[in-house]
Amino acid sequence: MPENEFARYHASMNALSRFSAQSLQEFCIQVFTHFDVASEDAETAAKVLISSDLRGIDSHGIARLFGYAGMLKEGRIKARPDVRVVHESPSTATVDGDNGLGLIVGPQANELAMQKAAAVGSGWVSVRNSNHYGIAGYYVLRALERDMIGWSMTNATSWVTPLWAAERRLGTNPIAIAFPGLREPPIVIDLATSVIAYGKIEIARRNGESIPPDWAVDESGKPTTNPDDVPAAGALAPLGTDRERGGHKGYCLSSMVDLLTGVLSGANWGPFVPPFWPRDEGQATRVGEGVGHFFGAMRIDGFGPPEEFKQRVDDWITTLRASKPAEGTDGPLIPGDPEREAEQDRGPNGIPLTLPVVESLEKLARETGIPFGN
Amino acid sequence: MPENEFARYHASMNALSRFSAQSLQEFCIQVFTHFDVASEDAETAAKVLISSDLRGIDSHGIARLFGYAGMLKEGRIKARPDVRVVHESPSTATVDGDNGLGLIVGPQANELAMQKAAAVGSGWVSVRNSNHYGIAGYYVLRALERDMIGWSMTNATSWVTPLWAAERRLGTNPIAIAFPGLREPPIVIDLATSVIAYGKIEIARRNGESIPPDWAVDESGKPTTNPDDVPAAGALAPLGTDRERGGHKGYCLSSMVDLLTGVLSGANWGPFVPPFWPRDEGQATRVGEGVGHFFGAMRIDGFGPPEEFKQRVDDWITTLRASKPAEGTDGPLIPGDPEREAEQDRGPNGIPLTLPVVESLEKLARETGIPFGN
Repeated sequence: MPENEFARYHASMNALSRFSAQSLQEFCIQVFTHFDVASEDAETAAKVLISSDLRGIDSHGIARLFGYAGMLKEGRIKARPDVRVVHESPSTATVDGDNGLGLIVGPQANELAMQKAAAVGSGWVSVRNSNHYGIAGYYVLRALERDMIGWSMTNATSWVTPLWAAERRLGTNPIAIAFPGLREPPIVIDLATSVIAYGKIEIARRNGESIPPDWAVDESGKPTTNPDDVPAAGALAPLGTDRERGGHKGYCLSSMVDLLTGVLSGANWGPFVPPFWPRDEGQATRVGEGVGHFFGAMRIDGFGPPEEFKQRVDDWITTLRASKPAEGTDGPLIPGDPEREAEQDRGPNGIPLTLPVVESLEKLARETGIPFGN
Repeated sequence: MPENEFARYHASMNALSRFSAQSLQEFCIQVFTHFDVASEDAETAAKVLISSDLRGIDSHGIARLFGYAGMLKEGRIKARPDVRVVHESPSTATVDGDNGLGLIVGPQANELAMQKAAAVGSGWVSVRNSNHYGIAGYYVLRALERDMIGWSMTNATSWVTPLWAAERRLGTNPIAIAFPGLREPPIVIDLATSVIAYGKIEIARRNGESIPPDWAVDESGKPTTNPDDVPAAGALAPLGTDRERGGHKGYCLSSMVDLLTGVLSGANWGPFVPPFWPRDEGQATRVGEGVGHFFGAMRIDGFGPPEEFKQRVDDWITTLRASKPAEGTDGPLIPGDPEREAEQDRGPNGIPLTLPVVESLEKLARETGIPFGN
């Protein structure tokens, strides 16, 4: 973020009430348990959600608890899924999530990838019949704890157009991967393959602002500066935006994620990936089961002595951080810096929540009888 | 490519002399053999080079033969490297290329990844002490032949700046991956993680044209439209260009490739990756050995029945191809379409070579006594 954007963001966050991560996590656990999630799974799911808030990715954290709870209440998602391996080799597997909460299915499939890595050096698990799994970055941090390089991808509701199309055909399909340092904190990469997240369109709409012409197209596939065009019948652009600036590359990366998560596992893919809260499931076309994920784990000692690798990661970090800064900037960040900075603030000082999120949690509290507060 | 660019490109190619792929490949084999490369390795290296020309990636094909030959002649690259595994697990390995021709080291390491995949479902090989390995796409096509999903990455001479830096710190670091169809041709993804290839800067310089402000920065890190600024003291921008349009994502992807290829294997990384033809090796700082690559292979039947997967890939292709076209375009391509189109032309009709390339090959012919012609 440019510094003024940082400043504006921090100012807006500082105006909000803060809630301790621990109390929010406890509330999540109780809500999940209330809706019949087994207690160990409820703890994991809450941890995934709150890790998103701690890392500053507000869109994927407790802001979604109300939605997850609603789907559990309506029986659209199973509270006690029978997550099972449907096909495997020593280093690969396909997992069926049994339409469970993605926050439960994801960690189990990721655990399987790490177990396979422990046994034969690497593990790769494609998942079908799951749901929204939180932030991709959560999973790769687990691999770091075991001296592994973790990979995580998921497909998602289609909001993104391929280059030269005028239609939503692919999700914002993120890729995450992490590398441990020795004395330096880890390098944590977690990026959506669209030019921006859909949330930025919503912010512009709320504020009545126009958007840069590089972010989205209207229903004819032409660049638009009107954020209302996107939910109307437009789409987000792929990373790179257009041909001249590499929009075909963003399209390729989003396709890669869709193929590894949806097509490989037998989940839905492309335009058929269900929305976060599928209200019209009866009518929608389905080409597979649920949402798809892909997890990978590689033991560092499958490639060489971990300490030596981590020392080289430290050297890489030091070198890149010392790059000559572009005029008007403080110089490059290391991937993972912004999320760690958020965590260093929010861990001790609490997580700022917007009023609509607080209200949704208060509503949940009234419905379930579980006390909520900071 | 927009259609007018296609048309201009095809017109320029049609004006050139064409040479049969078979005769060019035979010439390469003889040249490599002349410089003491073992005959089987010479065949492989020639095949890698010519696959680039056949697929329309002129910059990485026979245009570089003169350079490869020169480095062999000067003893900068070993003709008969002792490529060896320095560390391994059932599904992972680090390979030392013994400063061999990348066109020999790459195929051997890729073969090891596929052998490990055959044995335990997947194989992942990080490589150090190699050199330029041709096109990333060549390697993933080999995996397709064995019903595997192939991955290939390499680091490269630093021409790219991180977001918010004003310095060349990373290579154009490509990522390739391929997925087989059943009746449809395969999806082949092969992309550099910079916004454009350096070749586009050279073309603009030759033609005296300005460049779009999204492609590169000058020595202060500001966008430039003067292509001469790049070789002077500027750098290419990462995919996404700036913060607003996702330049941090291109920087993250380029970093990911550098970490998996250079840092994981113990090769050089970031600004220390040697140039294609290192003329000043004595003075340059080195943090590892040679150039780094990373290869992966996953058996499709490690995830499920291959026929079913391929049928789903066909459905994905058909669906994406049928997307509503953006106004003024013929609609989206499928990754791999442009390269296959080139191959369908160049296979039967021959490979067009520019005059400087023909002259470099004629010079090689004179030096070696190996006849060259079409």
